[in-house]
Amino acid sequence: MNNDTKTAIQSIEWRDDHVRILDQTYLPGREVYSDIRDVGRMWEAIKKLRIRGAPAIGIAAAYGFYLGIKELSENSFQSFFIEVERVAEYLESARPTAVNLHWALHRLKTTIKAHKDKDISELKEIVLKTAKTIHDEDKRTCKKIGENGVNLITEGDRILTHCNTGSLATGQYGTALSVIFHAHEKNKDIRVWVDETRPLLQGSRLTAWELMNAEIPMTLITDSTAGSLMRRGEVDKVIVGSDHVAANGDVANKIGTYPLAVLAKENKIPFYVAVPFSTIDMELQEGDNIPIEVREEDEITRFNDSEVAPKKAEAYNPAFDITPHRYVTAFITEKGLIEPPFDEHFKTLVK
Amino acid sequence: MNNDTKTAIQSIEWRDDHVRILDQTYLPGREVYSDIRDVGRMWEAIKKLRIRGAPAIGIAAAYGFYLGIKELSENSFQSFFIEVERVAEYLESARPTAVNLHWALHRLKTTIKAHKDKDISELKEIVLKTAKTIHDEDKRTCKKIGENGVNLITEGDRILTHCNTGSLATGQYGTALSVIFHAHEKNKDIRVWVDETRPLLQGSRLTAWELMNAEIPMTLITDSTAGSLMRRGEVDKVIVGSDHVAANGDVANKIGTYPLAVLAKENKIPFYVAVPFSTIDMELQEGDNIPIEVREEDEITRFNDSEVAPKKAEAYNPAFDITPHRYVTAFITEKGLIEPPFDEHFKTLVK
Repeated sequence: MNNDTKTAIQSIEWRDDHVRILDQTYLPGREVYSDIRDVGRMWEAIKKLRIRGAPAIGIAAAYGFYLGIKELSENSFQSFFIEVERVAEYLESARPTAVNLHWALHRLKTTIKAHKDKDISELKEIVLKTAKTIHDEDKRTCKKIGENGVNLITEGDRILTHCNTGSLATGQYGTALSVIFHAHEKNKDIRVWVDETRPLLQGSRLTAWELMNAEIPMTLITDSTAGSLMRRGEVDKVIVGSDHVAANGDVANKIGTYPLAVLAKENKIPFYVAVPFSTIDMELQEGDNIPIEVREEDEITRFNDSEVAPKKAEAYNPAFDITPHRYVTAFITEKGLIEPPFDEHFKTLVK
Repeated sequence: MNNDTKTAIQSIEWRDDHVRILDQTYLPGREVYSDIRDVGRMWEAIKKLRIRGAPAIGIAAAYGFYLGIKELSENSFQSFFIEVERVAEYLESARPTAVNLHWALHRLKTTIKAHKDKDISELKEIVLKTAKTIHDEDKRTCKKIGENGVNLITEGDRILTHCNTGSLATGQYGTALSVIFHAHEKNKDIRVWVDETRPLLQGSRLTAWELMNAEIPMTLITDSTAGSLMRRGEVDKVIVGSDHVAANGDVANKIGTYPLAVLAKENKIPFYVAVPFSTIDMELQEGDNIPIEVREEDEITRFNDSEVAPKKAEAYNPAFDITPHRYVTAFITEKGLIEPPFDEHFKTLVK
C-alpha cells in the first residue's frame, strides 16, 4: 500500500505461502518475528498470546484456517467440509471467548458453503483470498478511523490513552492509536501520556513500544496518575478504544476507562472513543447488559513469578468496565465522527 | 495498654534495652522481627524501608537516637551535645526528606537542651522517656482517630481504602485503618476494598497483610477498578490518610487519591480523610503549594528485576497528588470529626 503511514508496523503479514507474526510475548524486550506455516503453530500463537487484540486474532485465525485446510486431500465437498469444520473447531479452542476469532471462521465457512459447486483446490484459493480480504478490510477501517480522527488533534496536544489499541491489536494502525499515528504523520507536534494499564501492563509493554518505534514522544504513567495530570491541565484529549459499544453509546473497554471518562468530564477535557463501526452493537440496549469477563486473581496477587500479596488474599479482577454514554464526547469511526445523541446517529448510520 | 484493639499489630516496640521492629521488606511473604541494639542498625532499617510510614519513621528514629547517645562517654554537656548533634545528623541522612524523622530528632535535641543542667546519665534517661512519649502519643492519637471515626461506619459497610495507613505506618492502629480496626472490634460487619496502590503496591503488600492478620474481610483490586465498583454501588465509604493537609482542607496523599475523591463525589459516596490534627498545616494556604516528590522512573518501568517497558521509555512518577477540599466530606482526627467549612473549623480547633 502506498498510503501506509510510515509509523505503523504490521504485526501480521501474509508472505506467499506462510504468515509472519510479530511475537508479542517477547515485547518490549525483543522484536521477534515468527514464520507460521501450519495450523498447529497458529493455534499455539493465539493460545499463548503471541498474537492478541480482538481484530488481530480474527485475522490470524483466518490465515491459520487457510494453512489448516490447504493440505486436506479430500476430494468430495462433503468429506472436505467435515475436515473444514474440524479445523475451525480446533482454532476456536485456542481462545474460546474471542468474538473476532469466531466471526472470522464463521465467515470463511459461509464462503466455502456458498461456493460448494467449485473444485476443492479452487475453494482453497477462495479461502486465502477471503482471509486477505478480512485483513485488508481491517487495515482500511483502522486507517479511515485515523484519518477521521486526525482533525480533532491540534498542534501541541497532549493526548492520554489507555491499554493497547495499535497495530499490535489490529491488522495495522489500530483504533485510538491510529488517530495518534496519523496526527504524527501529518507532523503535528503531539505528546502521548500512556497509562501502564494494570494488571497486564498492555500500556507499558505494548503501547509504549509502538509509540517509541514510531518516534512519537510519550511518557508512561501509572493508571492513577492520569487524574492529577488532568487536574493540572496537562492533558488536552483522552482517546481510548472499545471492545463493545451499546446502541445508546455506553462503552465497554479495558478496566480503568470509566475513571478516565469521569475525570475528563470533571476537568472539561474531551473524551473520545475510537472504534470500527462494527463494534457498535445495535441489539444491545445499554452497557450494563454487557457481561464483564472476570479474570484470574493471580494477575493481581502475583507478578512474574513472585507474590506481591499475602497468600490466600482475595482479589477481584474484572477485565472491563462500562462507561455510560454521557461521558463520551464523540465516537471516531470509519464512517466519521459521531456526536450525541448517539442512539439516533447510530441508527441513521447503520442503515 | 489494656484497651488495645486485638486486631492491630505493633510494628515497633521498645523492649528493656533494644527496639524490636517488624521488618516490612519481608512482607507479605514472611513475618520477620528484628532486634535493633545500635544506631547503625536503625539507620540501615530506616534507609532500607524496613520501617516506613511517616509516624513510624519518627518513632524509630527517636529510639535509634537513644541507642546512639546511650554509649557516649563524654562528661561535659558541651562535648556530649556535639556528639548528640552528630548522632542526629547521621540518622537524618537515612531519609533526608522525612518530615517526622526531622521533627522527632528536633524534639529530642530541644529536650536535652532544656535539661542541660542535669547529669549526662540522667539526660540519657530523659531521652528514652521522651522517645517512649513520642511513641505513646502517636498510639493514643491513632486510637482516638479510630474511636472518633467508628460511628461513621454502619453495619454492612463496604469501605474502600488506598495505600497503607495502618499499624505498619504508625505507632499502632494507623489512621484510615484505625477506623476500620475499631469498627471490626465493635463487631461491625464490614468489608474492605484494598487498592493495590501502584507503583510500590503498599496496598497489596502491606494493607492486605494487616487486614488479613486482623481477620477483616478484604478484597484486593487494581487502582483503576475502584471507579467501576463505585458506579455499581459496591462501595459505601472511602477512607484514606494524608501526608499533608493545607489550611483550606486541600489534601496531599499517595498518588491515586484525587481520582478516588472525584469518583466518590460523582457517585455520591462519602469521602473521608483520617489524619492526626498535626498533619494540618495552618501555614500552608492551599494544596497546590505543597511540593510533590517525583520518584525514580524505574519504579514504573521495572518490576523486581525485570523490565516491563521498553528500554529508555520515559516515565513520570509523582508520589502524591492533591485533592481539593471540595471533594472531602470530613476529616477524622483525634480532636473529632471536622466538617466543612474546613478553614474555619481548623482555626477554631488549633487554638
